[in-house]
This record gives sequence, C-alpha cells and structure tokens, in this order.
Amino acid sequence: MFRQGGAAIVLGTIGAKAAAAPNPTKLPKLLAPTENEPDPPPPPEPSGKRVGYAIVGLGHLALGEILPAFGESKHCRPAALVSGDRAKAAAVAAHYGIDARHIYDYKTFDRLHDDPDVDVVYVVLPNGLHAEYTIRAAQLGKHVLCEKPMANTVAECNQMIAACSKAQRKLMIAYRLQYEPYNREAIRLARSGDLGKLKAFGARNGQTQGDPKQWRLKKALAGGGALVDLGIYCINAARYLSGEEPIEVAAFIHSTANDPRFSEVEEQVDFLMQFPSGMQAACSTSYGYHDSKRFRLSGEAAWLELDPAFPYRGQQLRIGRKPASGEGEAIETRVLGPKNHFALEMDHFARCVRENRRPHTPGEEGMQDMKIISALYEAAGSRRAVRLPAADRLDAFRGDSV
Amino acid sequence: MFRQGGAAIVLGTIGAKAAAAPNPTKLPKLLAPTENEPDPPPPPEPSGKRVGYAIVGLGHLALGEILPAFGESKHCRPAALVSGDRAKAAAVAAHYGIDARHIYDYKTFDRLHDDPDVDVVYVVLPNGLHAEYTIRAAQLGKHVLCEKPMANTVAECNQMIAACSKAQRKLMIAYRLQYEPYNREAIRLARSGDLGKLKAFGARNGQTQGDPKQWRLKKALAGGGALVDLGIYCINAARYLSGEEPIEVAAFIHSTANDPRFSEVEEQVDFLMQFPSGMQAACSTSYGYHDSKRFRLSGEAAWLELDPAFPYRGQQLRIGRKPASGEGEAIETRVLGPKNHFALEMDHFARCVRENRRPHTPGEEGMQDMKIISALYEAAGSRRAVRLPAADRLDAFRGDSV
Amino acid sequence: MFRQGGAAIVLGTIGAKAAAAPNPTKLPKLLAPTENEPDPPPPPEPSGKRVGYAIVGLGHLALGEILPAFGESKHCRPAALVSGDRAKAAAVAAHYGIDARHIYDYKTFDRLHDDPDVDVVYVVLPNGLHAEYTIRAAQLGKHVLCEKPMANTVAECNQMIAACSKAQRKLMIAYRLQYEPYNREAIRLARSGDLGKLKAFGARNGQTQGDPKQWRLKKALAGGGALVDLGIYCINAARYLSGEEPIEVAAFIHSTANDPRFSEVEEQVDFLMQFPSGMQAACSTSYGYHDSKRFRLSGEAAWLELDPAFPYRGQQLRIGRKPASGEGEAIETRVLGPKNHFALEMDHFARCVRENRRPHTPGEEGMQDMKIISALYEAAGSRRAVRLPAADRLDAFRGDSV
Amino acid sequence: MFRQGGAAIVLGTIGAKAAAAPNPTKLPKLLAPTENEPDPPPPPEPSGKRVGYAIVGLGHLALGEILPAFGESKHCRPAALVSGDRAKAAAVAAHYGIDARHIYDYKTFDRLHDDPDVDVVYVVLPNGLHAEYTIRAAQLGKHVLCEKPMANTVAECNQMIAACSKAQRKLMIAYRLQYEPYNREAIRLARSGDLGKLKAFGARNGQTQGDPKQWRLKKALAGGGALVDLGIYCINAARYLSGEEPIEVAAFIHSTANDPRFSEVEEQVDFLMQFPSGMQAACSTSYGYHDSKRFRLSGEAAWLELDPAFPYRGQQLRIGRKPASGEGEAIETRVLGPKNHFALEMDHFARCVRENRRPHTPGEEGMQDMKIISALYEAAGSRRAVRLPAADRLDAFRGDSV
Repeated sequence: MFRQGGAAIVLGTIGAKAAAAPNPTKLPKLLAPTENEPDPPPPPEPSGKRVGYAIVGLGHLALGEILPAFGESKHCRPAALVSGDRAKAAAVAAHYGIDARHIYDYKTFDRLHDDPDVDVVYVVLPNGLHAEYTIRAAQLGKHVLCEKPMANTVAECNQMIAACSKAQRKLMIAYRLQYEPYNREAIRLARSGDLGKLKAFGARNGQTQGDPKQWRLKKALAGGGALVDLGIYCINAARYLSGEEPIEVAAFIHSTANDPRFSEVEEQVDFLMQFPSGMQAACSTSYGYHDSKRFRLSGEAAWLELDPAFPYRGQQLRIGRKPASGEGEAIETRVLGPKNHFALEMDHFARCVRENRRPHTPGEEGMQDMKIISALYEAAGSRRAVRLPAADRLDAFRGDSV
Repeated sequence: MFRQGGAAIVLGTIGAKAAAAPNPTKLPKLLAPTENEPDPPPPPEPSGKRVGYAIVGLGHLALGEILPAFGESKHCRPAALVSGDRAKAAAVAAHYGIDARHIYDYKTFDRLHDDPDVDVVYVVLPNGLHAEYTIRAAQLGKHVLCEKPMANTVAECNQMIAACSKAQRKLMIAYRLQYEPYNREAIRLARSGDLGKLKAFGARNGQTQGDPKQWRLKKALAGGGALVDLGIYCINAARYLSGEEPIEVAAFIHSTANDPRFSEVEEQVDFLMQFPSGMQAACSTSYGYHDSKRFRLSGEAAWLELDPAFPYRGQQLRIGRKPASGEGEAIETRVLGPKNHFALEMDHFARCVRENRRPHTPGEEGMQDMKIISALYEAAGSRRAVRLPAADRLDAFRGDSV
Repeated sequence: MFRQGGAAIVLGTIGAKAAAAPNPTKLPKLLAPTENEPDPPPPPEPSGKRVGYAIVGLGHLALGEILPAFGESKHCRPAALVSGDRAKAAAVAAHYGIDARHIYDYKTFDRLHDDPDVDVVYVVLPNGLHAEYTIRAAQLGKHVLCEKPMANTVAECNQMIAACSKAQRKLMIAYRLQYEPYNREAIRLARSGDLGKLKAFGARNGQTQGDPKQWRLKKALAGGGALVDLGIYCINAARYLSGEEPIEVAAFIHSTANDPRFSEVEEQVDFLMQFPSGMQAACSTSYGYHDSKRFRLSGEAAWLELDPAFPYRGQQLRIGRKPASGEGEAIETRVLGPKNHFALEMDHFARCVRENRRPHTPGEEGMQDMKIISALYEAAGSRRAVRLPAADRLDAFRGDSV
Repeated sequence: MFRQGGAAIVLGTIGAKAAAAPNPTKLPKLLAPTENEPDPPPPPEPSGKRVGYAIVGLGHLALGEILPAFGESKHCRPAALVSGDRAKAAAVAAHYGIDARHIYDYKTFDRLHDDPDVDVVYVVLPNGLHAEYTIRAAQLGKHVLCEKPMANTVAECNQMIAACSKAQRKLMIAYRLQYEPYNREAIRLARSGDLGKLKAFGARNGQTQGDPKQWRLKKALAGGGALVDLGIYCINAARYLSGEEPIEVAAFIHSTANDPRFSEVEEQVDFLMQFPSGMQAACSTSYGYHDSKRFRLSGEAAWLELDPAFPYRGQQLRIGRKPASGEGEAIETRVLGPKNHFALEMDHFARCVRENRRPHTPGEEGMQDMKIISALYEAAGSRRAVRLPAADRLDAFRGDSV
C-alpha cells in the first residue's frame, strides 16, 4: 500500500551544489521491486503556466470537492468564481488565492469574456441551467467542462454541442469516473479478455435523500429524480466497461405516494438494458434506500466488481476467478493508489485544451446517456421494452484516449 | 460512504443579493439522517492569516506528502523551503506559490530568523540531523515540528526539549497517526471500555527495503534500522491506544549476513512489551519482508484492528465481538471519511502556536519512544528482559487533547 | 467463531457412577459470556426411532450432498435407495449401512409401498420427472420431499398437490435455504424493521455450464434453462425475505447463437419484479457467466447482503448502515455457525411428518415460483410487462414456521 | 464456490442396465473449466472394511466434533466408547449404531484388548491422563491417536513413544490442522518459494475462558494454561509452515491476580521464537481475551494469512503481494472446499495403520512442542532467552507425507 517512515530527504543533496536543474520526480527508489512504491510526486508546473478555470456555482460539490481538488491538480488552477452570493464568493476567493476582481455573479457572467486568466468555464449549476450557461460560456469564447447529467433534455444537449462547435470551443462532460484509477483498471480488465466474453452487468446506485426543498427534487432544476442523478452512473458504467451501446431497455418506476420528496421527481427506477453482443444489464437506482453504490461485471470466465464504485473516493476493486494454480476460487482485492477524481478530469481537459485533443467524454457522451434515460422513462410509462439505435463501433461517442 | 451526483449549488443563491456574510459551511443537508453525509467543507481561512511553515528537506516525504497536504490544511500555508538543491527548491517554490526570496539552503538556514512569514520550522531531514536543526530553529525563535524518530539518541532528545524550552518555543513530534480519524477512533474505542479490559496488543510494521545506498540504511543518519523507522509505529500505537507505558521489554534481532542493506543497521526486530495493567504486546518490524502494517488490540470482550494501520492513507478499522443480539460473531468494518494526516497534524500544531496550547505529541512523547527503543536494543544484545521506569499516570508524556 | 483445544471430557464423569440418565447436551460452559460458544451437540436420537428416507436418484446432488447430510441430521436416516444402476446403488447402500433389500430401481419403485422403513420419498430426479414420481410416491402412501424446481409446468404442480392431498400425505419442496441459519437470519432482519422499509432487492445467480449433454440442458428433462435451475433462487429469495408476492414482471433473455449448450434451453435471463409495497427487484441468472451467487436487500435505513447467498455452504452475511454511535458507515460481517442445509430441511420435514405440521415450504410455495417463472418467459417473449395476481397476505404460500 | 441447482441424477442411468460396477465418483462434469467444480463424492467404503476407533472420553470435543466427523470419514467407523458415565455412553452408542457390548468404562478399559472391532484407541481425555491411557492402549495392542497437547511433561512424552514402540503399535498426535485444506495450502505456499525467503511469523490464539471449575484450569489435569491449550497452535504452525525448529525463545507471562480461573494455570503468554534461517516469530496466547485465532507469515516478497487459522472450521486464506501485472497491491482471498478436520486426521491414521506408514504427526512431533513449551515457561520465569537444540533437517519430527 503506502509507505511511511520519518523524514525522507536525499542525502546527497544536503549542502550540495546544484549542477543542472534536476527533475524532482527522479528520486531514488526506496523499496525493493517486490513492493508497491507509489509514483514519485508530480513534476511541479508553475502556477503561471496552468490552465485557468472559472467555477460557476458554489454549492456542496464546488466547495467540498472541486475547489480543494486544485491542490492535487498538475495543470489547472482556480482563476475565477461565479456565484450569486458575493460574500461567500469573496471568502472562497481569499482561501484559494483568487483576486477579488475575478469574482462574478450571474448578471456579470458575460464579463468572463474579457478575463484572460480564464481558459475554461466549469459549470457546476443545477442540471436545468447547464444548457444556458454552457452555451453562453462557449459564446464568450471559453472552453466548457459541464457537470453531468449534461442537461434536462436531449434537445438541450444538441444545442450545447452545436454552440460549442460553432464557437470552436471544446466541450467535455464531467464523467470523473472515466478518469480515476479504479474504474480505469476495471475498463482495462473488461476489455482485456481476462473475464472472457462479457455477459452481465449489474449495478445499484442509491442513497436516501433528505430535505424535500433541495433543487435535486425539483423537476425544473433537476430534470428528473434518482435516474438522472444517480442512475446515470449505472448506465455510463455499463457503457464504458463494455464500450457498447444498449439496443433495448425496460424499466419499472416506483415513487412513494404522499412523500413530499417525490412530488415532482421519481424515487426509484429498476431497469434492464440489452447490448448487441448479448450482454445484459440489470440495474437499480433510488433516492429512497440506504447508500449502495456498486457494480459487478460478469464474464464467461471471471467477474470484476467495484464496491463502492461511484463515490468520490474509497473505491474497492475485486476480481473473482479460478486460481491460476490450485483449487477453489480466488477473489483478488486490488489496492491502488487513490487519486483525486476531479483533479484528474480537470487535468485531462487542460491537456485537451492545450494540445487540441478531443476530450475522452465530449458532449456526445453526455447526450447518449440522456437518450438512454429518455428511453427508460418511456419504457416505464408504457410497460414495454423500448429499442434504441445501434452504434457502429465500440466507444462510439468517446473522444481521444485518457 | 461518499455522495456523488452532478452539480450542487444552492438554488436560493442564484442571483440573490448577499445580505450578511454567510458561513459557507452552513449548506443544507442533502441526505436523510440514515445516511453518512460527510462534514461540510471547512470554513476557508484566508492565506494571509495562516500559520507559515518552513519545510526543511525536500525528499520523498516533503515532496510527495507534506507539501501537497497544505491543499487540505485549514490553518497552514507553505511559507519557505530549505534545501541543498537550489534548482529543485526553485521549481517546488513556484509550484506552491512561494516567492523565491523564501528559499534557503543549509548555509543560509539561520536567515529564517528574519523571515516574518515563517512561524514554524518543519524538520523533514534524516534522523541524525533532527537534533541540530531543531535546536537551531528554536534558537532562531521559531516553533518546531520535527519528524519521528525524534533523534538518534535519548541525549539528543533531551537537548532538543531543553533548547525549545529555553527559547520558549513549542516543540511537537510529527506523530501523524495520533491525529487522523481511524487511529483516533481506535483510541476512543480502546479507552471507552467497549473492548473490556485491554489484554494484548500485536503489531507488525515491515516493508522490503531497496537501494542499499539510501540514508535510512546508514547508521549515522538513521540512528538504527527497521526498529527506529518502522518499529516505532508499533511502540507508539501500543502506548497511545492504552495510554500506558511499558515496564519491561524483550527483543530478538536478525539481520541477513552479507546483505549490503544491513551492514550498518538491523533488518528485523521482534519484541515483547509488558505494561502495568498486565497488557502485553508482541510486535515485529522489518526492512526485509513484504509490506505489512497493522495492529490488533484484544480486550476481554472484543478486539479492534487497523489493517493497514500505519500508511499515509487507506486505513481500515474492524471490530470483532459477539453481536448485540443474535448468535455468532460480528465483525464490523467502519468506513470513515479519510483525512490527510499531515494536514491534520500541521493544523493541530498551528492551533497550539496561536492558542498557546501544549501539543498533543510534544518532545517528551518522542523521547519516551527513544527510551523504549534503547531498552529494546539492550534487551536484544543481552538476551535478557530489560525494565523501564513506571509512569505515574496515563498519557504521561502527551500534551493537550487533539 | 469456533473453539478448539485438545481433549474435552468432563472431569467429574471419570469413574463416576451414573445416577440418572444425563442429558448429554448439558455440558458445562467452557467460555465466558463474551464469547460465541457453539451450541452443545444435539441430543442423539437412536437410529430406530428416526424417520426413514428413500432417496430417488443417485446423481451428483444425492451422492455429494444429501446422503452425507444424514450424518448431521437429528431425526432422519437413509432407509432406501432408488436407482437405475444396481451396482452403484449397492456400493452406496453398503456405505450408508442400508441393507440390500432396500435397494429399488424404477421398475420396482412401487414396492416401496411395502417397505415399512420408508416414511418419506425424497425425489432427486431431473425436473421433468418430479411430477410422476411425486404422484406415484403419494399413491404408495409415502410423504414426499421434492427437489426444486417443483416441476416443468404449473399444471404438473397442481397435479402433485392434488395427489398428495388425496392420499393425505405431506408434500414439501426442498427449498433448503429457507432452513439454513444465514438466510434465516436475513429473513429475520428483513422482517424486523431494522433495515427500514424494504425498497430494492438485487440478485445474481449464475455459473458457466459445461457438458452440453447433461440433462439440465435438455428441455424435456429440465423444463427450461438458467431461469428454472438458478433464477428460481433469486425469485424465491425476494419472496421469502419480504414475504410479498410480485405483481408485475419484465424480462430480457439472451442465448448465444450456435452454442450447443443452449440449443434447447435459454442461457441467461435478466428480469425485474415489482411488489405491492413498492419494493422492486432487479435480477440476473445465467448458465454463461462465472460463478456469482448473491443478493443484496436495500431498505430505507440499511442493507443486508448474502454473498455468496445460494451455494450449499460458505454463506457470508453483511449489513451496511450508519453506526449506532460515531461517524461513517458500519459494515458488519456476521459469522454464524454453519449448518448442513440438507440435514436441516430433512429434519424439518421429519418433524412435520411426526407432529402433523404443515411444511414451511409446501407444494404451493413451489407452484408460486413456477407461476412467476412462467410470467417471466411470457414477458421476455412479448417484450412487455406481465401482471400477476396479488396475494392477500404475507407468506401467502408458506406453511408452519420452521 | 459451491454449486447448487435442484436434482442431479445422470440421465443415462435411469432405467439402464448396469453393465460393470461403476465408480460412483466418475460423474460427468457439470461445469465449464472456468468454474470451481468440487471434487466428486468419495468412493464409499463399506462399513465392514473400515478401521474401527474406540473413543476414550465423551466430553465436548468427542460429542460435538469427533463422533459426528465419522459421517464424513472415508475409512473409519466408531467401534467402541469409553466413558465413566454409562447412561450417556449408551445414548451416544445408540445414536452412532454402536452395539452396547462395545461400551467400556475406565475400570473395564483393558477389555478393549479382546475387542476385535477396535483397531485404534483415540484418547480424548484431559491432558494429564494422555500418558496413562496411551501407554495402556499400546500395551493392549491397539494403535493410538492422542489429542494434543501430547502430555503434561516431556518425560511422559518419552514414555508414550517408548511404550508404543515396544508394543510395535503406531502413535499419532491429533494435529488436525496439518491435515485440513487451508493449512495445507498455506504450507504448500510457504514451501513453494512464492513468498520469497520466510522472515516473520506472527500468531494469536486466545479466547476468554469461563467456568473456573473446568479441568482446563486445573494444573494436574491440564498441565498448564493458555500456552499448552492454545499457544501450542501458534508453535506448531510456525514449525509446520517453515519446516524449521526454533533455536531460541523468550516469553512474558501474565495472570490476573485473584482471578479464580488463574489460580493454578497461567492466563496469557506472549513469546518470541528464533529459527535457524533467521525467521522470527512473535506470538500471543491467552485465556483472557476475546476470540482471536490467526497467523500471518511474511516472506520477502509476499505474505499469507489464515484468519481464522485454528478453529474447527471457517478458515480464510489471504495472500498479499504485488500483482502479476498492473499497479498496487493484490490481496487474494482463496476459497477452498472445507473439509472436516477430524475426518481427515482419522482417515490419515487409518491409512497409516493399514499401509504400515509412519504418521505425519507422530509422537515425536508432539514431544517437540512440549520441549518448546517447557523452554518458554523457563524463559518467562528467568526473564532470559532460552536456547533449544538445532534440528538437523526440515520436518525433523514429522513422518510420511499426508
């Protein structure tokens, strides 16, 4: 796992004359090859060269996860804040070393156009506002990183893609799990053939929601209930693990009658998806049951599981199969060095912006999830299976590799 | 565990006029009381008000762990760097926003005296240099956070304590585990009576060391081998879990003959400690076996275990006991929100400096481990048990509570 | 867990005069109340008083599990064998102390009528033969324990129930999991309210099938594929955990084209079930993916999981919830004393026979699973949800308590 | 893990004429090669050909474990009982199909000489009686299986070995763990080189003892306390995993003052052992702490752990190492088909008797543990390390392979 043990300076450097500029990542290996020695620390990139982000919206996610993640980023820095609450924004700006002139509100949003420190606008607003602010940001000439779900409707998704394309700006949807080590290792294993032919995907993403007044429980702002907020993780994982797109779906919806939390949006959706290879998925998502966030992917020869799979941290990867030698069943737990999901996704987008690469999870990736969600709502309403168009290749909606 | 779900702004703040300065930690609860909703994000403290740290030594630990930890700190900021390698220091300083005038080397170390941005000197040098730089820093009027083991000898420890006392500066030893949630919860449980009377502590801390030329394998710089670098975690844990001090110890040492790694320092120590209450400890530490870093504490009625216990992250806490109702054995795994160990210890020391409190792990705490280590080496050499003086109270060498 | 330590005689009995007949289960408690001391050994019931079983069919299940289980039974003994292979039957009979005159074949089956040692006929034949041999056994005046699935069709189930009823003989379906400690503890927890309102059930039961010529892959003998053989466990568990009966189902089927194993029966079924309380189930069963046999039941406040849930042994029970005190999430693993599933189910039926009680899993319990399976096949074929009649109470098809 | 699914007969045998006597273990493979299909059921051996055991002492162990184990044995049968409690013995005999003429008490013990059904005497008496009854049994011409610890003193062990040798009868000590799959797999791995050079063994075997009046807490009958009853498992495991014999030991003892349970025997022993290769062991055993029964063996490249290691069932094997490919640490849990420990050890001895082989755990194996225990008591008393003679080869005291 991880190493410890007091101080760790390199002896030779004490009092040494610095010859040439050293690469600080080239520290000697402390441990034997049998041990898991973590990567050397990242080469520092000076703040001045980093890609500047404007964070739009200062709620739980921005304050609790995204802004702290800049501390673990290699290529990004927080450059501006957009908030309706000036005092809060000022306190946050001071904390992260952002000068007060980079604080905006929703009326002054368009002045971002003239802020040269801002390369990327990261939209962390309620779902119902994603389309508007993505389109406006692109029109201001900024690249856009937008939280998922991408928007409330497929039509909005189309407009967002078109606006960014027209402005020749990049658009990425913030599917952080496609960038973090545990889900990436699961993808690698799923595609490697080690599991045999993929047969079944099962996932559950639920948590018991609280305050009925929060925006996630309002149809106009959220676009839907558990399915769009949590179920999207199950859908996306089935797609990124297999690389396939579903061709038929079925769903059952349940919302507890007279529960104020579910007067506008649905509580729970259980659903099936069938994929062209024959792989089938059975999933459940809910705002009404205790925290459960995991998947298992079963192949002919082995299974892999992330439990939990979807939280911001704490992923655990297990693989079940017959042991290479000997009897019985071998269940392997893989302990990887955890990385900050948001730092990784922001760094990926920073590189895309700099190197003119297509983001791994572009607008099209987000729109495809919205098409599937739309089909699931239709299936639940009609009590019938609903078909979806087949894709012509694996990873049909993804961009360049991570 | 941890929540996810797209954007997270508070609806009411969009376009709202800010009335009074809000506390950004007072966000509404998203989840029901059945769920584990993580703490709200910390209230940001502006950089200018934070306690400034000078980091002395830019090796693995400083670059890979300590400097990144400032991103998760509430009360601290990196204010200066001390390194023998100017180019490296310059690159690191740029990365962390430290102005070049705050870069020092070992010749210019004493100029820290005149650097008003530096409140605390964090000594991250090889063990053999801890005493010298701690004493010098105190004499410069700075508070000192020193990595463990505190020094190479008990005599040095005494000198360090005396120097800080004379200079009326605070001294804390960086026992990060006494500040992080998993070990703190273990301490709480051990002291709560839930385990019944404490009976046995068992711990193992080992890893297979690599490059024979690293300073940890040099007697003058390291002071010893596995025992001082890794075994100290076992000793310290037995002490902080129980609050007791050992009264008798025994030890066996083994070093592989002709292994260049172990020509100066020992490879492996297995040892026993007896405590006044009757609790006994059986521990093992080594530079020669595969990563294993854990402890189990057994009481009359239950046990608790951290496996791993000692790394920088990834702790897992389990408790074994008879279930409250029903048959069998219940083994509970507790999943806590992980926190950065270094951020926590630095924040604790920052508060001690500001509020004139005694650090929870002062120099006396570090010296006591050195006394025990010294007794263990004596026991191994003489093949006899060695007695230690009894303490007159629990937590005899610790300061104010965390 | 389990105790060990050499010899274990009771001192006082050495050389003692036996006063009155002691109860051999009344041994003194060796361990403290904090410890999980296993139940005392069962009071021995002399062989002559035990309920005699005729085992019909000597395949994997009978030889590998059922016959050895008599060694752990309290109330049953193997009294007769029915097999088409005389030599095999003779060897098995000798092993279990069954006199050769109690060996029958399928032509001489009806002579069981005159075998007074046989109280119960345990039908362990291919599914397609369950109806015939159950009906014939009842007509011979024997009670019948029949393996699951109960039969190939609902019509056959009806005939079996009618025949036993007419003959005034008891009929039980061998749902061993409803009798073993882990699933029973899961039932207890699910019904206790500890999980809060039940919301979601998810299960997977699959294994990669081998030899295409085995009877399980022949429609006439098996009645269906993965769904009837393995999926039935998921269906039954959703029902016994909640006590409810599903009111609507949907399903997707997939069978690999040109795979000789799936020319007659289906490979994989993923399916949904909705229950009157609003609980929904999402399940997967397959003959085409690697061993995966588990369920998770999510309630508003907690979840419970058995993984594995369905094998003959090795069950593991976990419960996830917020801890009673303190932060985070508590995942409790319960280690119970495992019991032989077949011994427990046979002992239950023996008591039903003796005490004239209604078996907990009578024919009606088996028929209900067949009705649901039939609806699932219909749903998969029509791509539409299929409704099922509501039950008028919990545990609508179960008999007396275990 | 384990398979399930209704009936399991072989189709071809229904109504078939039996050609030649089939081997009932030659059933077709149900599952694909990716799956863990358990071994076919054992070939039945008729009762009349089995080795007959006389069980001496009807306490917890005999009633709860040993007698039921005959149901899972391949080569043994219970042939006689020896008990001071006639009524209890009669009930037990009836349960296991033992004719009343094979019931003996301690006065009539010598009549076993004339009981031709008895090949082996299994001594399950308090430790202090092992020597007497082993010697008497050998003098009656019976082979002896004796529970561990072998006796109260090394001198008694010598007498037992001499008596069996003189009578040309076999003597085996009932070290059941050396015969069961999990510990055997651990031995295989330890010897395979997969862990690298063996470096450290750590073990804990404790449980909180109850009734102060039980024989285990009486010096004359038990010979000692936790060390002889539970600590022997740690000693034996260090020896069978490595094949080595310790050359030096140290120990600390603690017994709670005024606890009636520990007025005659010790409560807890923590101890160290050093082996010729440099491997060191740190162990703890106690009658005073909550159930904890495990070991971890650390090699240069990997570790293996059984937790629990020592109970009658429920073993779990884990292996920690760097993954074959990819990053991080891989912790593999191996799920093996559990086997009854007592059936396996009795079957081994039965084969030794029949085939004139030397038992894998002969009297010498038991005596060596007693020598080490004796050295540990001496070390604890003198507060000094105690040396033991080196062995001239691996597995110096073991017999033929299992």
